[in-house]
Amino acid sequence: MVGIYILVIYDIKIERINKVYKFLKTYLIWIQNSVFEGEITKAQYKTMIIKLKELTDEDEDSIIIYKIPKKYLNKEVLGIEKNPIEFIL
Amino acid sequence: MVGIYILVIYDIKIERINKVYKFLKTYLIWIQNSVFEGEITKAQYKTMIIKLKELTDEDEDSIIIYKIPKKYLNKEVLGIEKNPIEFIL
Repeated sequence: MVGIYILVIYDIKIERINKVYKFLKTYLIWIQNSVFEGEITKAQYKTMIIKLKELTDEDEDSIIIYKIPKKYLNKEVLGIEKNPIEFIL
Repeated sequence: MVGIYILVIYDIKIERINKVYKFLKTYLIWIQNSVFEGEITKAQYKTMIIKLKELTDEDEDSIIIYKIPKKYLNKEVLGIEKNPIEFIL
């Protein structure tokens, strides 16, 4: 799948976190508290953005999405790796 | 400065967060809850890793560092941008 590799980091009011977490789990891999990572298609990306806007309050919540070309993904973990991703290249 | 552009995301026990936050602020820009971003030199990177290991407990804490080539940094923010970074190219 030629997709987009993304990292999603959120800082969301407690009352909305669960819904966002459950939604993102359908697309991405949970990495750490408020952090998801994974590869999705462009179409899925668009749908994800629309849904995230529905699930959050733009005046109170913050979501940052980093798009990283997979071949440049360079990651180092100190301490516990809460959810190690096995890369299948 | 030809440095490394990094993203640091941490999930640390409450008793150690303040020290890590104060330390990272000396190198990087606070973006959002438990997230720092910025460009540092290779030497600074090595020093940072050593210091972060000193400040945290590898059996309880988790720090993920993403190294992203600056020209591939592609970021989208939904909602509040807690600490917008002005890129000086």
